[in-house]
Formats: sequence, structure tokens, C-alpha cells
Amino acid sequence: MSYRYAYLGPRGTFTEAAVRLLGGDGQREALPCPSIQATLDTVRGGQAELGVVPIESSVEGGVTATLDELAVGTEVAICAEVLVPVEFALLARPGTRLDDVKTVGGHPVAQPQCRRWLAANLPQADWLPAASNSDAAMQVAEGQLDAALAGVFAAELYGLVALATDVHDRDDAVTRFVAVRLPTAPPEPTGADKTSVVAFLADDHPGALMDILGQFAFRGVNLTRIESRPTGERIGRYRFFIDCEGHVAQARVGEALMGLKRICSDVRFLGSYPEAGDSQAGNVPRSGNRPTNVMPNASDEEFLEAAQWLARIRSVG
Amino acid sequence: MSYRYAYLGPRGTFTEAAVRLLGGDGQREALPCPSIQATLDTVRGGQAELGVVPIESSVEGGVTATLDELAVGTEVAICAEVLVPVEFALLARPGTRLDDVKTVGGHPVAQPQCRRWLAANLPQADWLPAASNSDAAMQVAEGQLDAALAGVFAAELYGLVALATDVHDRDDAVTRFVAVRLPTAPPEPTGADKTSVVAFLADDHPGALMDILGQFAFRGVNLTRIESRPTGERIGRYRFFIDCEGHVAQARVGEALMGLKRICSDVRFLGSYPEAGDSQAGNVPRSGNRPTNVMPNASDEEFLEAAQWLARIRSVG
Amino acid sequence: MSYRYAYLGPRGTFTEAAVRLLGGDGQREALPCPSIQATLDTVRGGQAELGVVPIESSVEGGVTATLDELAVGTEVAICAEVLVPVEFALLARPGTRLDDVKTVGGHPVAQPQCRRWLAANLPQADWLPAASNSDAAMQVAEGQLDAALAGVFAAELYGLVALATDVHDRDDAVTRFVAVRLPTAPPEPTGADKTSVVAFLADDHPGALMDILGQFAFRGVNLTRIESRPTGERIGRYRFFIDCEGHVAQARVGEALMGLKRICSDVRFLGSYPEAGDSQAGNVPRSGNRPTNVMPNASDEEFLEAAQWLARIRSVG
Amino acid sequence: MSYRYAYLGPRGTFTEAAVRLLGGDGQREALPCPSIQATLDTVRGGQAELGVVPIESSVEGGVTATLDELAVGTEVAICAEVLVPVEFALLARPGTRLDDVKTVGGHPVAQPQCRRWLAANLPQADWLPAASNSDAAMQVAEGQLDAALAGVFAAELYGLVALATDVHDRDDAVTRFVAVRLPTAPPEPTGADKTSVVAFLADDHPGALMDILGQFAFRGVNLTRIESRPTGERIGRYRFFIDCEGHVAQARVGEALMGLKRICSDVRFLGSYPEAGDSQAGNVPRSGNRPTNVMPNASDEEFLEAAQWLARIRSVG
Repeated sequence: MSYRYAYLGPRGTFTEAAVRLLGGDGQREALPCPSIQATLDTVRGGQAELGVVPIESSVEGGVTATLDELAVGTEVAICAEVLVPVEFALLARPGTRLDDVKTVGGHPVAQPQCRRWLAANLPQADWLPAASNSDAAMQVAEGQLDAALAGVFAAELYGLVALATDVHDRDDAVTRFVAVRLPTAPPEPTGADKTSVVAFLADDHPGALMDILGQFAFRGVNLTRIESRPTGERIGRYRFFIDCEGHVAQARVGEALMGLKRICSDVRFLGSYPEAGDSQAGNVPRSGNRPTNVMPNASDEEFLEAAQWLARIRSVG
Repeated sequence: MSYRYAYLGPRGTFTEAAVRLLGGDGQREALPCPSIQATLDTVRGGQAELGVVPIESSVEGGVTATLDELAVGTEVAICAEVLVPVEFALLARPGTRLDDVKTVGGHPVAQPQCRRWLAANLPQADWLPAASNSDAAMQVAEGQLDAALAGVFAAELYGLVALATDVHDRDDAVTRFVAVRLPTAPPEPTGADKTSVVAFLADDHPGALMDILGQFAFRGVNLTRIESRPTGERIGRYRFFIDCEGHVAQARVGEALMGLKRICSDVRFLGSYPEAGDSQAGNVPRSGNRPTNVMPNASDEEFLEAAQWLARIRSVG
Repeated sequence: MSYRYAYLGPRGTFTEAAVRLLGGDGQREALPCPSIQATLDTVRGGQAELGVVPIESSVEGGVTATLDELAVGTEVAICAEVLVPVEFALLARPGTRLDDVKTVGGHPVAQPQCRRWLAANLPQADWLPAASNSDAAMQVAEGQLDAALAGVFAAELYGLVALATDVHDRDDAVTRFVAVRLPTAPPEPTGADKTSVVAFLADDHPGALMDILGQFAFRGVNLTRIESRPTGERIGRYRFFIDCEGHVAQARVGEALMGLKRICSDVRFLGSYPEAGDSQAGNVPRSGNRPTNVMPNASDEEFLEAAQWLARIRSVG
Repeated sequence: MSYRYAYLGPRGTFTEAAVRLLGGDGQREALPCPSIQATLDTVRGGQAELGVVPIESSVEGGVTATLDELAVGTEVAICAEVLVPVEFALLARPGTRLDDVKTVGGHPVAQPQCRRWLAANLPQADWLPAASNSDAAMQVAEGQLDAALAGVFAAELYGLVALATDVHDRDDAVTRFVAVRLPTAPPEPTGADKTSVVAFLADDHPGALMDILGQFAFRGVNLTRIESRPTGERIGRYRFFIDCEGHVAQARVGEALMGLKRICSDVRFLGSYPEAGDSQAGNVPRSGNRPTNVMPNASDEEFLEAAQWLARIRSVG
């Protein structure tokens, strides 16, 4: 079966690399979109089954456009995630020598991530920011720039070669991408899943956040991420993006989400999906290989036993 | 319909007063038993439908024989509770004047509760302890004592009169009694109920008790009592008697008990039953008149809404 | 130096055994007292430097007379504790054979603790309760009883011999005794200490007990015991006896106690003292040999570093 | 006395408005800087006593450049904050009529905040983004644009007039600015203060964030804001920006910060400073007028009493 993937374009970016990793070996059609909102709208309108957008950078933090769109835009559901190592190469036209490089371009965030390499190897070159790394590569192909900082996979696309690889200063930077689709039943639990929600506080009484965390902790559910974002109403009003280990189909997660639902003014379920491995290597597995660390007394079996016990004491004392 | 009540005898004690309060206006047959264990065994063996025993004194604390029997004896279920004011009268044979009283008897705990009155009014009288207040009253009837400290209701039983009433120093002492029966479905929720359980700790890791309390707190269930008792195994091993507001049929209580069940090595359900009013007056209502203070976001309606929401996100995202 | 020890008498009981264990090899004078209150009053009045009373039984639980006296009587300070194994022997006059034993006596709690041995070895003997095990032994010496259940150390006192030892059914029963003195600076920390307090709740708002436990937990202090006792005012009002690991001189314990003091209507400090070993053997060490398990980030060094950091940011930002 | 204020320029922006509000009526010299880092470096290098930068928008959330610079750059201390309403006017050259406006410019974030007004009043005008609102106003002055979205205070600076005021869609948007200086003793407590810190987790064990929150909650300190930011090391590693009510000089805040210091791998103190009022009006007071809501049992008096009590029991039991 063939799927259409909308993604934050243009071609040749790390997002497109995420599409390849998420798509596996099957057939797929990839549709680059001009913005995060446009990518999600393509899914919402049915022009693509899946949309791929960045959600979090290990260097820059949450991608606010994605977070806000997921929180308040028309609902879509996360069905997969992938971690893409942010590995830069210096791309140039074939035949270019390092000494020839007088101008270097790339996305504005690329330059600080390669600062040391540039200072050591191209101290005289001028930096010229571009709309995306891919756009800089295209400018190299067109002769407007001498070299571009981009993923090595962009070279073939624009007929370039890599003068140098691994030119980034920090070798463990990674960006997390998610694939979204129209809301439907979540993918089956794999044993290593994550669940994402947005919690809107009913009020900001002291301890409100602690009450939220308690809903997870006292049911043995481990959080992997919590990020506050303003609601836009006024300073001091936040909503919380929460990722936890486990799948909504599991008892402990379901009960924690119900608890959250009761104490919050609203909760938006963003999805349960296989957890991406924490690999920094190039071949990031599509689904995680680390089984979720189930905390003591929180397995589905233990929830089931407790439910059976409750049913018994309710009926026969 | 007529019920047989076994109770901790003999006749004429505060326990028999509890039987009257619990039994309402209906027909009942009351069977005095020689001990707490004998009372419960009478229920276990089917010789009585209900057993009435003291469980807690506002002055003396938990009645350990009752607590231990409920925790580890063959299971019975608490189906009602009542609070009986501990109000002493000085009973004597008709015609006796206060000046005539040279000897006073009663249960050993009666004397310290009336110490100030005795010192002021009978400074010369000898105190002679008896097996029960009722036993002292009987000795008065038989001429072995001049007066007895007992409930005023014991007077008629033994042909005595009250020389003085309200001779106790503290005017708000109260004893809590429970009625137990063979395990069966709990009485219907009344809107003002209590639930009692015994929790056995899986281990004594730091914070174990806090984890137990959290199971209630994070589901909006209020505790009314917690008492630790040794398991008998070694110093430092305890089981906890916990009373909470609400009925096992309610969602918040059910979920809290399931949580308790998961994190404890064992939980014994002792019953859900109407809460006794906190009245100090003689006419203690059989069922409480104070509706349970449901904490925010913890009503059955809110639990139901959350469950419906969970079912929806599990099936359609 | 010689100390006078008041203790709950009479001679020949387990409490006297506790005095021996607490007193070490030094000279001491032991004064048996008729009650727990009388023992403490002897210390309060200066007739003895130390008073020894039972505080907790691994079988029976807290000794309420001791707890209540410590909580509301004139203040005394716990300065030591000891665990005494409850090991019964069958004592008789020299020359008595087991077949000769027709009557057996002891404290009322002794009989159930030796039930199985008695059933197997003296099925025909009558049980006659006494005021204390020692009193039963005395009656044996005087010929009123054939045998007594008592500690083997009572034999010599009354000129008796042990017909059998270890006649108790459960071989790990133990009673915890404390030594108290007039309030003064606590003994020096040993590295394995305990601290005891009584906490009086300001009110019984939901979560009050959890707030109390949190004062310890969030400062890395482990609780070893918590027991609720009624205040005597009305059903539902309790005070809590709390034992924690560590010494009041330690920063984490001091800060936890200050937190407790702030949130409670009152806190009574009962003392810091060396923890008794959890040994079941006869030679229980006076001070524990297990170093307190200091939780992460809760050592005095870490508290000191944090205090120095705070002083710095307060003065220079 | 005259102060030099470095601020994120250019002139005519909301940041400059913040400088005016922070500077009061005294003399001041304001130095516009090209970036947040440059602004802070001007303070670090001693070229200005104070630096003013945006830290949080009620619409956009935390200003990551400011947060990251405060967390890991050379230390500076926040000494004041101010809330500036984000109120846009449409500025044009004198004599311009609304009908004449064919092009409108401003900072990229200005356009979405005035979308509805623009659609209703200037549906045909082209939007041309500028480096800042002030830059757009300058372009209007120079005739390159017809109108600019900017604060009304920018009009005088560039010889413009306001064709319309309050053209923003949402009337309660506000940006929070802070003034920083070289680390020194914090300003005196005013009774309505805030304290800001950055907490670096020692590890990401389950419950780590709850432990952090507990350090505040169990000492009665209310949080006003918590924001997670990646450390840059890898996905799943965060540091937390925490604002709480109160001043580091207060006992409850000091103790909470010490607790945080102990359980975190590191804590950076960012400052204690007067809390800005939550006013949406133009005349935002420099220091808040709402006294901090001190939680029960958490006043300095209660901390002092507890400390005195602790000193007493440590010395005399």
C-alpha cells in the first residue's frame, strides 16, 4: 500500500530524512509543504494520509509552531515518532576545493551548530543565511554560494558533493519528528510506547502542577517530558504538553489520563505511538526497542487483578 | 422482620445501648456474649445475623481486640456504625442517700472518667473495680456494693435508681461501635458513607505510607482515620486500619481501593456503611445526616465523564 | 558513677531485664514502681535519674499508658531504647517434674503466647492468671501454684528452676523499652540514632497527615514508626507518635522537625537516642550497630553546602 | 544618580518602553544593543549598570535567547521586572489618510496580532515584514512604507502620527521584561517579590520533577511559572526555569532553595526582585502592589519560632 506523506519542506531537509525513516521500505509519496500549519492542513483536508513535522530539538527545545497547532488547531493524532541526528556536511559543486570556499550558507540555526569547525577550517569565509539548508544547497547548485551546511542526503538532490562530513561541533544533537494523521484508534501497543497529551489547568492554585504530576506518579506512569506553553490569555496562564511512557490502551495510562481529565479544565489527547529508540546512529529504528520500564505494581495484570478484586468486594463484600 | 444481635455483654452496658440505637424500632433479639471474639464467632457460625462490638473510644483509642479480629480472623463485614456518648450515672438501690454510699464499683476505666465528681461528692467512698459496669450494678442490687458507675439505662435492669447523672468529668467522651455480619454486598450508598479497610504493607520502604495516602488523596477521597497496629512479626512491621469517606460503589473510592490493592501485599475490605452522625446527644441517628464532602473533581459524574472520554480516545483517537 | 533506675515492677519481669540491658556493666540501683505513671513520676521528682518503661510490643502494639503519659504528662526525654526478646520459660520449684504440674500461672498475655506448647505438654493443667509473670513465680515459690510462665531470669530470684525454656509459640516476639530522664540535651549522635516526637494536628483538613509525612520525605528523613492515638476530645481527633531515623542535631532532622512545628498546632519532642539493634538474640546491644541509611542528598555535608550557597546568594547574588 | 541602561534595540520598540517604565523619573542613559546577548554583554563588561531584555510573552511564551543566556552565560542577576502591554498603533506620516495606505510593515510577530483589524480596515494593503517595529516606522519616515504597526510611543521618535490606535486583536497581550545587573545582593524585600532560579536535574528518575516541586510546596512557597528547556545534550534532558513568590531573604524561600540545591545537580540563582503588578493598563507600576499571598505556617515569624524551638530542644531537650 502506498501512503502520501505531507511534510515541512522543501526537499533535502532533515524533515525529509524523517519521512524516509518513518516510511520504511514501502512505497510512499512525499509532498513538501511550505509551513507546519500547511503540512497539518494537508492531512486535515485529506490530501495526505500522514504529515511529518518537527516537534522538539535537543538543542532548541520545543517547536512552538507544532506544539501550538497540535494544542488548539483542528485535532490530528500522532501515530509515530522518529529521532533524526542533526549531522551537517559541507556541500559544494563537484571539483570545488576547500580553499575555494569564500561563502557558506544554510539555515540560521546551522551556523552556530558548526561554529568551531568553520572557525578552524574556513576562517575567512562569509556566512550567508538561507530560508533552509536545502535552499542554501540549491543556491550552491546555482552558483550563488560556494558551499552549504546541510544533511549529506541533500547532495545528490542538487548534484553536489560533500567536501567534509560531520562538521557540527556537538555530535549528539538530534531532532524529534512526529507523524500525524486524522484522529482514529491509536496504533496497537508494542510494549515500548509513548502517549502525548495537552493539559489545560482549571486554575492556577498552588500545587496545581503537582496534582497533575501526581496523577501519573501514583499510578506508576513515568513522564518523559513536560513543557509549559502560555495559553496566550495572560502572563501566568499555561498549558502543559506531557509525554508519558506507555499506551492509552494500558490500564495505568488510561487511569492516569482519566485523573488528568477530571482535575483539568480540558485535556487533549495527542496520541499513543511506538517510542523511538534513543539511538544517535544513522539508522534510527522506526519503533523503539527498549521495552517500557513498568514501575512496580503498575502492570496491566496487576490492574486487572485489582479490578477483579474490586468487583468481588462490591458484590459479595 | 426480626434480627438476632450478638453483642459484647453482659446486659446493661454501653454495648447494649449501641444495639438499641442500631436496631431501630424493629423487633430484635439480643444475645450477650462473653468476649469480642465470641461475639464475632456467633455471627460467623450463623447463630446471629449481626454482631455489635466497640471499635474505638474517643478516650482510649482503638479497641485492639476488635481491630485484630477484623484484620486476621475469618472475614466479617461492617454494615453499620453508631456513636454512643459515654455518660455515667451513679446507681443505687431505691432509698439510698448519697451519704449512705461507702463503696462504689464499676469497670476499671469508669473510675478515672469520673474522678473529679467522686472526689467532690464521695471523697470517703472506696472504689471496687468490677468486670463491667453492669456487673457492678448487679452487685449493688445484691447488696455487695452501695453504688455503681454505669449508664443510666442499667438502672431499670437491676431495679436501681440514679442518685446522680452526668457524673463523668469530660462531657464529650464517646465510643464508636460497629455492627458486623457475614460478608455480602454492602448496604446501598446513602450519600454519607464510610469505607473501612486494612492495608498490609508489601515492604517498609521509605515513603510507603505516603504512597498509601496518595492513593486516596490523588483521587479526592478524604481519610477519617488511620491507625497502625503491629503485625506481630517483628518491631517495625505494621498494618494500617484506614477509614475513608465514601462508599465502595463510588468510582473514586473504588479506584483508590484498587490502587491500594496494587501497592500493598494485601488489603482486606472491612465494609462500606452509613456514617454515624457526630452528635454527642443521646439520640444519635443511625445513619449520618452530613452528606459526604465530595472533593472537587471527584464525583461519580466526573468519574463517569472521564471514563467516557477515555473510551472515546481509545477507540477513535 | 552509679545511676538509680526506676522501672515498671515488680522484680523478675521483662522490664527488669531491660534495665539490666540498658544499664551496662556499671553500678546501678533499680527501683521497681507499681505503674508506668509512678515510674515516670519517680524520675520527674528526682528520686531516680532514669526510668524504664515498655513502649511497644511486636505482638500487642503501642503501650498506650506510656504513650499518653509521654504525650501529655510533665515532659521527660527518651535517652535510650532497648529491644527485649519475649522468651518464656516454665519455672517450678526444684524437684518438680513436668508430670507434677497441675496449675500454671503468669500475666494474662503470657498464656496466649505459649498456647501451643501448653496444649502439647500440659494439656490437663489449669491456667491461673496473675498480676505479672513475676507474681506468678512468687506464688510458685510459696506453693500456691505448681509452675509459672516467666523469663528464665526470674528463676534465681525466687529459688526456682526452669522445667523447660523457649515455651513460647512465636520465637521472634520482642518488646521495646525506653529509658527516660529529665529533659536535657540529647545524647551525642552515634551515627545510628532515632528521634521521637508527638505531633498534634492543627486541624483535620484532607491531606493533613500527608503534609506531615511530606515534611520528612522531602528532606530525606525515613520514618520507622507512626501511631495515631485519640486526643480524647472527640472521635476523629488524633495525635501522632512519630519515630524517624536520625538525630535532632542533624540538619535534615532539625529542618523536618521545624517544618512539623510550623504546620502542627503543637509538637512535643520526646528525644533523640541511639537506635537499638534489631537483634533477636539475648545480648541486645545498647546502641544500634546499623548506621542510619542516609537518603541521597540529605547528609549533613550536603545541608551545610546548601546553607553556604544560600548565604552566598543572599549576600552577593 | 544616573544609570546607564543597555537594552535590546533599536529605539522605539516595546523594550525601550520597558526601560522607561523601569527607570522611573530619574535620569538615565539608554543604550540600544543589536541582540539579547549583546545587551547582557554590555552589562557584563561594565559599559552599562543595567540591561533590559524581554523574557516572556503572554502570546509567544518564553524568550529562549534570554532564558538560555541567563542559564549558561556568565552570571548576571535579575533585579527588576515589568509587564508592558502589547498595544499596537498604525503609524504614518502626517497627512496620510487610511485610504492612502497600500503597504504596512512591522516585526513579523506584529502582523498576526493585528490580523483582524488589518482584514477589516486595510484589506488591500500589502504586508512587508521588518527587523523590528521600530525599523518599520523608520521606513515609513523614509517613505519606503506607507504605515507601520508599532507602539504609539514610536510616533514622535520618527515624526509620525497614529492613524489608529489599539489595532491589535487581543487586548490583553503583554510582554514581561527583566532588568539585570552584575551579581550583587538582591534588592530589599518589598513584601511582594519574586525569585527566579534555574534547576538542572541530577538525573531523570521518575518523580524527579515532583521532588523539585515538593521542595517548594512543603515549605509553603507558591510557584508562578515553570518552563522546561532542553540542555542541548540529548532529547529528554531538561533544565527548569522556576519563578516563585517571595524573596531569597525570606526563610521559606531560602529553605526551599537549599532543598533544591541538594537534590539537583546544580541550581543557578537568577535573582529576587519586586513583582510587577498584573495590570494590563498602560501605567504598570514598577513594583507590584499585591502583597505576596503567604501560605499558612510559612511566614518568616513562623520560621523563626520554629528555629527557636529547634535550638531549645537541641540544647535542653
